[in-house]
Amino acid sequence: MTRNLPTQEARIAEDITSLAEITDPDRPFTRRAFTPIFLKGREWLRRRFEAAGLETRIDASGNLIGTRPGKSPGRGTIMLGSHSDTVPDGGRFDGIAGVSAALEVARALRDQKVELEHDLEIVDFLAEEVSIFGVSCVGSRGMAGVRPTEWLEREAEGLALRDGIREVGGHPGVTEIRNDIKAFLELHIEQGPVLEDGGLDVGVVTAIAGITRIEVVVDGRADHAGTTPMGSRQDALTAAARLVLGIEMLGTELAGGDFHFAATVGEFSIEPGAANVVPSRARLLIDARAERREDMETFVAELAALVEGVSAETGVAIEPPLTISDNLPTPCDPFVLDTLDAAAVAVGARHRRMASGAGHDTAWMARVTKAAMIFIPCLGGRSHTPEEYAETADVALGAAVLLEAVKRLDREL
Amino acid sequence: MTRNLPTQEARIAEDITSLAEITDPDRPFTRRAFTPIFLKGREWLRRRFEAAGLETRIDASGNLIGTRPGKSPGRGTIMLGSHSDTVPDGGRFDGIAGVSAALEVARALRDQKVELEHDLEIVDFLAEEVSIFGVSCVGSRGMAGVRPTEWLEREAEGLALRDGIREVGGHPGVTEIRNDIKAFLELHIEQGPVLEDGGLDVGVVTAIAGITRIEVVVDGRADHAGTTPMGSRQDALTAAARLVLGIEMLGTELAGGDFHFAATVGEFSIEPGAANVVPSRARLLIDARAERREDMETFVAELAALVEGVSAETGVAIEPPLTISDNLPTPCDPFVLDTLDAAAVAVGARHRRMASGAGHDTAWMARVTKAAMIFIPCLGGRSHTPEEYAETADVALGAAVLLEAVKRLDREL
Repeated sequence: MTRNLPTQEARIAEDITSLAEITDPDRPFTRRAFTPIFLKGREWLRRRFEAAGLETRIDASGNLIGTRPGKSPGRGTIMLGSHSDTVPDGGRFDGIAGVSAALEVARALRDQKVELEHDLEIVDFLAEEVSIFGVSCVGSRGMAGVRPTEWLEREAEGLALRDGIREVGGHPGVTEIRNDIKAFLELHIEQGPVLEDGGLDVGVVTAIAGITRIEVVVDGRADHAGTTPMGSRQDALTAAARLVLGIEMLGTELAGGDFHFAATVGEFSIEPGAANVVPSRARLLIDARAERREDMETFVAELAALVEGVSAETGVAIEPPLTISDNLPTPCDPFVLDTLDAAAVAVGARHRRMASGAGHDTAWMARVTKAAMIFIPCLGGRSHTPEEYAETADVALGAAVLLEAVKRLDREL
Repeated sequence: MTRNLPTQEARIAEDITSLAEITDPDRPFTRRAFTPIFLKGREWLRRRFEAAGLETRIDASGNLIGTRPGKSPGRGTIMLGSHSDTVPDGGRFDGIAGVSAALEVARALRDQKVELEHDLEIVDFLAEEVSIFGVSCVGSRGMAGVRPTEWLEREAEGLALRDGIREVGGHPGVTEIRNDIKAFLELHIEQGPVLEDGGLDVGVVTAIAGITRIEVVVDGRADHAGTTPMGSRQDALTAAARLVLGIEMLGTELAGGDFHFAATVGEFSIEPGAANVVPSRARLLIDARAERREDMETFVAELAALVEGVSAETGVAIEPPLTISDNLPTPCDPFVLDTLDAAAVAVGARHRRMASGAGHDTAWMARVTKAAMIFIPCLGGRSHTPEEYAETADVALGAAVLLEAVKRLDREL
C-alpha cells in the first residue's frame, strides 16, 4: 500500500544503491571493515551525512558520527545507527538499511523543520561483522567502554587492530565514557522469516538472545566396516546422530514457549572418514540462542543428561559438553519498547514484539543507555549472501517508526 | 596349550619378523606394491621360497610363485597363498601370515618327506591392497583372467600400472588362462573380533561378502542459526542423522539372522560447516556387506524407502540413493569347505564357519577353481594399523589345518 510518510523511500534507495556499488567488484557485496573499499564507503557516507546537514566526526572507537545539535544544550543525546561493513559475499541491507534509516530520520526532521530538545547522533558503528581481526562489534563495544584491551594487539594481514582503528580515524588508546546518551535505537533487517511469514511491517525487538557455543566430542573406536559385527561396534557417528536428534528435540521443546530459543549443530565432522572404517570420532559444535537465561541453563543441563544417556545407551564414550563461549541475553529497555510500539501504531505499521536471535550493536549500547531496536522484513529470511533483499518501502516505513519514536523520546526523556 | 604340530612356529615367526623389518623405516609397517621396498620384500621372499626347495618365478600378472612339483605330472596344481603388500601404516600379519602359512605347508611337506600327487604352488599375489594405482587384487584378478584391460593405463607417481607390472617382473600384455588349478586355499587374519571373542582357533570361511557402496545426498537449506525458528528449517544434518540411525537399524536387523551383514556410514560430511548456519547439505557414503545377495537387495530396497520416509517426515529434499559400486558375494567351494572342517577336526583346532566381511584374493581365485579360506584370530579384530597382532602359534595351527587339507585334497581331487 502507498502511505504518505515523512520519510522518503527514494533517498533510502539512493543510499543503499550507492553503497552497494562501493564493493569489491569481483565479490559483491563485500565491504569489510578496515579495507580500502570500506574507507571509500565511509567517505561516501560522511559526505552523505554532511549533505543532510549533520556535523561529522570519527569518535575514539572509530565510529562515524553525524550530529544534529538540539535546542537545549546539556539535555543529552538520542542516538540512532547501525553499521556499513559487510561480511565477505554479503548483502546490501544488513547494517546498511539501519544506517540509511537513521540518516533518513535526520533528513525528515530537517524537511519538517523540527528542532529536537536533545542532540541527535547518527552512527555508523565500526566493524559490527566479524572482521579480518576475528572479532565483532568493535565500534559499539568501544563506545560502551567494554572493548577488551588485548584486542588492540590482534593481528591480521600485517596490521594490528590498534593500527586499523587509527587508520579509520579513531584513537585506540582512548577509552570513551559516553554518559550523555539518553536513548539508542537501531533498525535492522530481521535475518529470519517471522515478519515475512506473518505479513508484518515491523518487529519490536524485546531482547538480543544470548549465544552459547558448546562442543561435544564422541570417542568411538575405528573398526573394519566389513568384519566387525553390528553389535560389536563403538560407532562414533551413530552415537553422534543420536545427539543431533536429541539436540533438535531439546531445542524444539524450549522454542515451544513464548520466548525465542534455537539450537543448531552447525559444525559436524567425523574421523577417519574412510568408506570401510567404522567412524572413531565425531565432533559437534552447538550454537544455542536464548532470549531468557533460564532457558539456556535448562538447555545446558539437559544436554549434559542427553550426552550421558546416549553414552550409556550406545556404550560409546562421549566427553562432557565443553562450553566454548557464553554470552548472556540482553533485554531491550521497556520504556523504549513501549515508545516503539506506540510509534508503530501511530505510523500504521503492522507490528509484533519478537526477540533477535542474531547479535547486534544494540546489545552493546544497552550497557550504557536505554536501547532497543526494530526489525523490518527481508526476503526468505536470508542474509549474509548477495541474494539478501529488503524492500526500500519497508525501510522507509521502519524509518518513519524511528522518527515518531525519536520525537516521543525527545519529549519524554 | 602346546600342540605337537608338523608346522613350526619358529619358521613362521622368522618369516613375519623378517618381512616386518623390510618397511619404510619412518612409517612402519609400510610395504606398498610397486615401491622399491616392496621389491626388496619380494626378493627376500623369493630366496625364502628357494630355501624351502621351491622353484620360483613371476607369472604374467606379477605374482611371485614357488612350485613344488608333484609325483604325477598333469594332475594339476593345488595352490596356497596370500599377499605380502601392505596399506600405508599397515600391520605385520594382514596377507603376510597367509604367505608364511602357505610356505610353511611346503616346508612341513619337505620335513615329512611327503610327495604330493599334484603340483603345489605357493603364491604371493601382487597388490591385494589398494595400491598407488587406486585398485586392489591386481595379481589375483590377473591370474583369474578378469583384470580390466583399461586398468593397465592407470597412472600414479609418473608410472602406468602396465609399467608397474613389468617392473615387478610380469608381462602386462599377457592374459593368463590357468586351467590347471584344482583347488586354492588362503589363510588370513580375521580382521574382526569373532574368533577372539569366541575363544576359537580357526574360522572356515563360507563366503566372501559382496560389497555395495551407496551415496546419499541431503539437500537442505542454509539459514541463520540464530534467527530461523526451529520449525522453519530444512536442516540437512538433522535429516541425515535420521538416515544414519535408520541405516544402523536396517543393518542390525539384517545381521540378526544366520548370514553376515553389515552396514556402515564411513564417510559423512556437511556444508557449509559454519557454527551459525543451519547445514544446507549432507553427504553419506554407505558401505554395505552381505554374505547373501538377497540381503543386499533387501537393504537397497529398504534404504530407498527410508530415504523417502525421512524426506517426507522432515520436508528436506534427499536425492535417491546412488549405487557407486556393487560386487556380488562369492561363496566358497562346498567340497573344500568340508575338507577344511575335517582338517580342523583332525588337527584339533577349535573352529566355526563364518563369512568374510572383507575382500580377499580368494574371491578372485574362486572364479577359476575350487577356492576357500580360513581365518585365524587377531587381537581386538584390529588390522590395517601397526597395532595389528596375531599369535604366531595361531598362524602355525592354521598352517597345520592347511597342510592337512592339502593332503586330503591331494588324495580326493
